[in-house]
Amino acid sequence: MSTPGQEEHSKGGVYSSKGKEFTRDSSYITTRIVAEPRPGTDDHPVEPGRYHLVAARACPWANRTIIVRELLGLTDVISLGAPGPTHDADSWTFDLDPGGVDPVLGIHKLKDAYEKRFPGYPRGITVPAIVEVATGEVVTNDFAQMTLDFSTEWKQYHRDGAPDLWPEHLRDEMAPVMKRIYTEVNNGVYRCGFAGSQEAYDSAYDRLWTAMDWLEERLADRRYLMGDAITEADVRLFTTLVRFDAVYHGHFKCNRNKLSEMPVLWAYARDLFQTPGFGETIDFDQIKQHYHIVHTDLNPLGIVPKGPDLSGWTTPHGRG
Amino acid sequence: MSTPGQEEHSKGGVYSSKGKEFTRDSSYITTRIVAEPRPGTDDHPVEPGRYHLVAARACPWANRTIIVRELLGLTDVISLGAPGPTHDADSWTFDLDPGGVDPVLGIHKLKDAYEKRFPGYPRGITVPAIVEVATGEVVTNDFAQMTLDFSTEWKQYHRDGAPDLWPEHLRDEMAPVMKRIYTEVNNGVYRCGFAGSQEAYDSAYDRLWTAMDWLEERLADRRYLMGDAITEADVRLFTTLVRFDAVYHGHFKCNRNKLSEMPVLWAYARDLFQTPGFGETIDFDQIKQHYHIVHTDLNPLGIVPKGPDLSGWTTPHGRG
Repeated sequence: MSTPGQEEHSKGGVYSSKGKEFTRDSSYITTRIVAEPRPGTDDHPVEPGRYHLVAARACPWANRTIIVRELLGLTDVISLGAPGPTHDADSWTFDLDPGGVDPVLGIHKLKDAYEKRFPGYPRGITVPAIVEVATGEVVTNDFAQMTLDFSTEWKQYHRDGAPDLWPEHLRDEMAPVMKRIYTEVNNGVYRCGFAGSQEAYDSAYDRLWTAMDWLEERLADRRYLMGDAITEADVRLFTTLVRFDAVYHGHFKCNRNKLSEMPVLWAYARDLFQTPGFGETIDFDQIKQHYHIVHTDLNPLGIVPKGPDLSGWTTPHGRG
Repeated sequence: MSTPGQEEHSKGGVYSSKGKEFTRDSSYITTRIVAEPRPGTDDHPVEPGRYHLVAARACPWANRTIIVRELLGLTDVISLGAPGPTHDADSWTFDLDPGGVDPVLGIHKLKDAYEKRFPGYPRGITVPAIVEVATGEVVTNDFAQMTLDFSTEWKQYHRDGAPDLWPEHLRDEMAPVMKRIYTEVNNGVYRCGFAGSQEAYDSAYDRLWTAMDWLEERLADRRYLMGDAITEADVRLFTTLVRFDAVYHGHFKCNRNKLSEMPVLWAYARDLFQTPGFGETIDFDQIKQHYHIVHTDLNPLGIVPKGPDLSGWTTPHGRG
């Protein structure tokens, strides 16, 4: 979710935690969409055309779901709604759509779908969110479960030759890798940017770069995080790496070096960027606008940097 | 001066110009210190031990004077006072000295020397400033003239073998080069950082990179800006380049690329850094603290980035 809970649901809000370490609100709507709903639960059934995925291109957590939907070939089965890069004090809004209305849901604000299901919903209005088209109600915003369910519960609708992004025989090995990527990298950059004190920032910076060095080493002798094939772990790492030089390096002060200065990780990130399903989901302008305009406590004037030069993303990566 | 007029004299002040382009206050105290004072003027005479140069290590405009004083061997002739990297709402202060008092002038604040000469002095208290020790009065803060006078008026006190930083036969050729470096680079990075609107920033960014590309080309086939020998023009360019990746790239959004991504300029900057008189005047910690703590309108939380990795400055430059 870009981004959850108390932080990223308001434009011009306060994201940093004065004097404190940044802590992410990790309470979500955990309803699941599954192949075989369990009796006595609020499980929703898998069904083509029944759901609308709302995922802003700017947001790294939403980006995950867009990529996995593409890789698995679920684009005809689950429709996609795209809020604009910034949001008002209330909610992500569909300001890129004609009339500012999502063409499938017929609403201006994502908040309407949250309120439809939970009147007075007290938490942040986050993306990604899956909305049931017929009822207009949000089903889930539990981003971590969402892509795993795309891989497992929606299997009968995958395209021919779709990758197995969460292979059973690798799950035990993937769990600690994905956990470390989440806490140290995906969330690690936010911990740097939203640190409310020098001490919290310094400690967050050290944690981040310890993890980046670990990844640089891990990927030196294997093409993808788990070996020869792309998995969910790569998707999760990619969404942070692709934003690194454009926003995290400067805006979040993750500036020991640019991603492009780490030979292995930079080649790995380009390899993924150039793989169908990854690069075409990236809109660097939206990404830069989102962070620099929304976080007014970090960037009060809302100026969006013109740099960096991003032409390197399409250069040969040499990891074939 | 770091930095002049209405902008950089206050801690926690407003440096950007909301909705507008940044304009530098360029009115200075233009009293000169010369070998032969002209009758009927306020010219002061050159005299060893008579003056104290107050120049914060953090400040690029002050850095110029520190470097030229070193290169010419004026260190025993003109003493140096060094205010700390940040300043309070009132003035640069001598908070690095024992008891917070400049050992030569016996004052806490540079402002005292300005007030001593001009009670109620209405402009910014800037560095570099030259203070007459006996009277405790500021003589000049006209940074652009100061180093030229070090080269010409103090000639009899230069060390043996001191470089001619402003050779007569090159002055006509140097003038437009130094002017362009001042308006487009030295001041160009501030124009980016203090832009009060997206439009002003975008235009400032384009101006800066046009100049950076010009320099990358100009220095491709000559070791220094004016040919085979270091001149004042190199000193003036160096003080901005040495701060580029540490502060201007991120804090001022001068982020098309890092200096270290421009092969010629990066080698040129390292060549100077490794020349006696340059590198030892640089204190990256003070530089980073100054910009990130003082400009609260750009960086409200005052967090100082731990990066970038600056170890590259001492690597071989290959320009011998």
